[in-house]
Parts: sequence; C-alpha cells; structure tokens
Amino acid sequence: MQHDLDHTISLLTRTPAALNALLRDLPEEWTLRNEGENTWSAYDVVGHLNHSERTNWIPRARMLRQFGEAQAFEPFDRWGQVRESQGKSLGQLLDEFARLRSENLDELRAWNLRREDLERRGKHPALGVVTLSELLASWAAHDLTHLHQISRIMAHQYREAVGPWSRNLGVLKCAGHSSP
Amino acid sequence: MQHDLDHTISLLTRTPAALNALLRDLPEEWTLRNEGENTWSAYDVVGHLNHSERTNWIPRARMLRQFGEAQAFEPFDRWGQVRESQGKSLGQLLDEFARLRSENLDELRAWNLRREDLERRGKHPALGVVTLSELLASWAAHDLTHLHQISRIMAHQYREAVGPWSRNLGVLKCAGHSSP
Repeated sequence: MQHDLDHTISLLTRTPAALNALLRDLPEEWTLRNEGENTWSAYDVVGHLNHSERTNWIPRARMLRQFGEAQAFEPFDRWGQVRESQGKSLGQLLDEFARLRSENLDELRAWNLRREDLERRGKHPALGVVTLSELLASWAAHDLTHLHQISRIMAHQYREAVGPWSRNLGVLKCAGHSSP
Repeated sequence: MQHDLDHTISLLTRTPAALNALLRDLPEEWTLRNEGENTWSAYDVVGHLNHSERTNWIPRARMLRQFGEAQAFEPFDRWGQVRESQGKSLGQLLDEFARLRSENLDELRAWNLRREDLERRGKHPALGVVTLSELLASWAAHDLTHLHQISRIMAHQYREAVGPWSRNLGVLKCAGHSSP
C-alpha cells in the first residue's frame, strides 16, 4: 500500500504500549539475554529505539525540512544506546520510550504536513536521496523490524527447550537481521 | 536456557495484552492485509492463536497427562480459525484471546506441576515423542513466532513506501515462515 501518514501515526502511537505490555517485569532471562556475541538483547533494542527517537527519525525529518538535499543527515550510531542506557532498568527505558515517542509525535502532528510536503527530499548519508514520506514510513517499519527482532531474540532463548517443535516454529528459522 | 515453567507462564500471560496494545483499533490496512495468496493477515493470526488455545496446547497437555504416549494428540487444523473467526471483529478476537488464555493459564496453574511431571511424555502426530516440558515451552515460543509473523506481515504493507530504507530493515528480509 502507499504511504498514509495517518496509518503511520496510528502504528507509531501503539508501539510503546505494546512493548510495555510484552516486556515490563518479565524475568531477566527473557529480556537481558541476546543471541550470542555482538548481538542485542530485548533491553538493548529498547535502548536503541530510544536512541533513534533522540537522534534519528524526527531530528532527520527536521533537517530535511530545513536543508532539503543540501546537507546530509548525521550518520546514526548503531551502538549509541550503550552509553545512554547505562544504569537504567528496562522499566525506565520503557518509560523513556513512551515519553520520547509521544513528544516526537506531537512535533510531527504540529507540522501539519500536506501531501506536497511529504514529497520533499533530503539526503541520507548512506542511502542517498530520500523523501520525507519514505523517512516517516521507515520510522513505522523500523518499529516493526525491532518488534520482529525482539520476538526472535526471546524465542532463541527457548531454542533447546522446545525440543522437536523447533521444526514448526518459523521464528527459529529467521535470518532476517544479519547484524543487530 | 533450560525450560522454566514460571518464565513460560510470565510470557504467556503478557501476549494478549501486547497484541491488544499493538492491534486494537489500528486501521484495517494494517490488520486485514496479508502477504499475498494463501497467507495470513494479523487478523488471521489472532484467530489462529484463539484456535490454538481451544484445540492445541492445553488440550494436548491434558491428553499427555491422561494417556502418556499411548494415544497421539489430535492433528491441529492450521486453517481452523477461518470458520471460528467468521463474522467477528478483530476487537472481538482480541477479547476472546485474553479470555481463553487466562482460562488456560488458570488450568495450568491448578495442575501444580512438579519437575517430574514436566518430564512426562506424550505423542505428537507428526513430531513423535515429546515431553510436557517441551510442549509448554513451545506454547510460549509459538506466541513469539506469531508476534514475529505479525510484525513481518505489517511491515510488508510498507515495503514500497519505505523506498531505499528497505535495505536496512531486517524484517523485510525475513523468510522465517514458509507457510502461514
């Protein structure tokens, strides 16, 4: 389907509550374990979502609106959450995610974007020319990619425990994310 | 990690609320679209989870406890939700899921399973001999496989809309589920 800003906002609004319902107060065996060296836990992913709220989607949309293609976005730090999450509980990260997301959606709504605004172009440091529409659709799809990743990381913890059922569980066959 | 019944119950308890937070009142463009012919939408998946609560995990655990390996579980109908979901809204299916799951977890808790109970064996019609521990771990991992699937189905709807970002979104590269 084509990008629809209202659909994007509907989804972006729901992700913090969905992750909160799934992860808050869950035993740490689910939330702090990862898939092996140099991979992320569910805790790391929530930290990454917070770092993305601070430095990726809305900040880049601001740049696009201000500079167009004249100035490339700042590169995104894929390990930026490590410092930011230090000393915080998962509960604190989930609270932060809800707050940051809500503030960012308030800003997005305040822009009152029209169809022609969505066609404005900016410059991604690696992907080249992108539109504001693509950026906002990717913000929503990025939530889904990390929900997808969290469910895979957690399922990985039961890889042995499920015994012969591993054959039937698609999540255990997913190789959708090469690096975190 | 090894199977831990408390961890399994913690996860099983949270899934209905997580899906409710993600899906309730979301535009139908997200929830009723699938990935092409003979695939499921998020709506179909919630129906499948309900059908599984009715006919798969707890009913099979009951059989295992009653008959051991002497009688194989009933085969599971992978399209059984089609009839059951007919005429129901997604909101109704989500309500049903919360109710069925809660009833099934009440029954599981009432069994007061000890470590040796978890080692009891039953017979899966396709997978052969399985333990109660494996069955219950698979119930939890099955929630995760379908959360994984729902996030992939929904991301698929924005495959075009994200433009060049599709390269960076792992969920768009997932081939973890061959059939629904």
